[in-house]
Amino acid sequence: MKVSKIKIRAAAITVSDQGAAGKREDLSGPLLVDALTKMGAEVAGQKIVADDREKIAHALITFADEMKVDLIITTGGTGPALRDLTPEATRAVIDREIDGIAEALRFTGYNKTPLAVLSRGIAGLRGRCLIVNLPGHPRAVCEGMEILIPILPHALQMIRGEQLEHG
Amino acid sequence: MKVSKIKIRAAAITVSDQGAAGKREDLSGPLLVDALTKMGAEVAGQKIVADDREKIAHALITFADEMKVDLIITTGGTGPALRDLTPEATRAVIDREIDGIAEALRFTGYNKTPLAVLSRGIAGLRGRCLIVNLPGHPRAVCEGMEILIPILPHALQMIRGEQLEHG
Amino acid sequence: MKVSKIKIRAAAITVSDQGAAGKREDLSGPLLVDALTKMGAEVAGQKIVADDREKIAHALITFADEMKVDLIITTGGTGPALRDLTPEATRAVIDREIDGIAEALRFTGYNKTPLAVLSRGIAGLRGRCLIVNLPGHPRAVCEGMEILIPILPHALQMIRGEQLEHG
Repeated sequence: MKVSKIKIRAAAITVSDQGAAGKREDLSGPLLVDALTKMGAEVAGQKIVADDREKIAHALITFADEMKVDLIITTGGTGPALRDLTPEATRAVIDREIDGIAEALRFTGYNKTPLAVLSRGIAGLRGRCLIVNLPGHPRAVCEGMEILIPILPHALQMIRGEQLEHG
Repeated sequence: MKVSKIKIRAAAITVSDQGAAGKREDLSGPLLVDALTKMGAEVAGQKIVADDREKIAHALITFADEMKVDLIITTGGTGPALRDLTPEATRAVIDREIDGIAEALRFTGYNKTPLAVLSRGIAGLRGRCLIVNLPGHPRAVCEGMEILIPILPHALQMIRGEQLEHG
Repeated sequence: MKVSKIKIRAAAITVSDQGAAGKREDLSGPLLVDALTKMGAEVAGQKIVADDREKIAHALITFADEMKVDLIITTGGTGPALRDLTPEATRAVIDREIDGIAEALRFTGYNKTPLAVLSRGIAGLRGRCLIVNLPGHPRAVCEGMEILIPILPHALQMIRGEQLEHG
């Protein structure tokens, strides 16, 4: 795992009814914080919220606008069930979507397990803050961060206008 | 081909002007019924409709709301021609899209034939009914169902809330 | 590189503030013209425009509606930076999107460089004119055209209704 040379302030959000109610230990949030730290990011905030569209959106806005983090990774609430609302909450607060990040998570995941395609997670920008949705399963967090780590620091530099080329 | 252990009520819709007018034998519809049966689903309905946005939407709504099927697979009308309207008709009746299913069909297809990327087919939920668009060609139906069969039973369980994890 | 047997009138648009201001040599535009010519297309027009949503949209509309080209390829302005507006300008002028073309560019690119996923480029139709966004980097133009050349002639035939099958 390559440590980024650019300064990244990040936040991690676990979306889980059971986690928010204290009925289930949040394993995915700490894994996310761990992966972000190993990537070289400063984890400025961490939160567990229920599968509630308003609460998810509020957490995203608080981290992006008040705490001014560069990067928010969410875990959970990306599936096809009715209570899975993280993509909808995220879409409501971003200005522009970056489809390729969500596609990469799914198609790399698909080679390991076909069920990875069921994640409806998205990625996008709220101003200069990059938000990426990962599924809730701890394994999906680890595999997702492996895919994201080679991409994120460069993406953040491009978002800041420090790097103009890609692909 | 693995037979699903969960109860699935399914419907198959062939979208084709020529098929609906009785001017061309519908090969893809029976292939779809055959694949669904082999998967262990009960095929509760089958229909051929013209490439007409209203007629496609009406068939989808009837199967989802009145016959209360769990799964509708369509074949045909996904290409880039002006008469290809199945994705538009589907998008008009679903509540939430599951991009990864359509992506998996295309990127797995792309490895066999680059032209698979021209399918504009989508997948999504109307309530708890999962709708997936496949291209019209019989080979695309067979290859598409091969990709879908490892995914669909689990997807339907997640949609019902019986399984909460994925990916 | 296979020469297409169908008649294709094409246009190339370079989207670049620096290119439009004459401050940087446009390397990608000529590479695009070269690849289109090798594919057998007649390049009916070529233009450099600034990263301005209105100007990009105007150039697309002029080539599609007045010059009635079959195909427009753009290069540049697809990244995540605030000045990258080509996907937004393109989405504003097309009638229907063809997600699979943009997905193929990204997932084939991803195997060479993970950063390819950061292109937000789209593809779609304005009437019968197919528009495809490529990233700005000369290498992305070459690699993108390699992916597009086996797809485009068939896509244009399907759009014209000359070929009804795909995938």
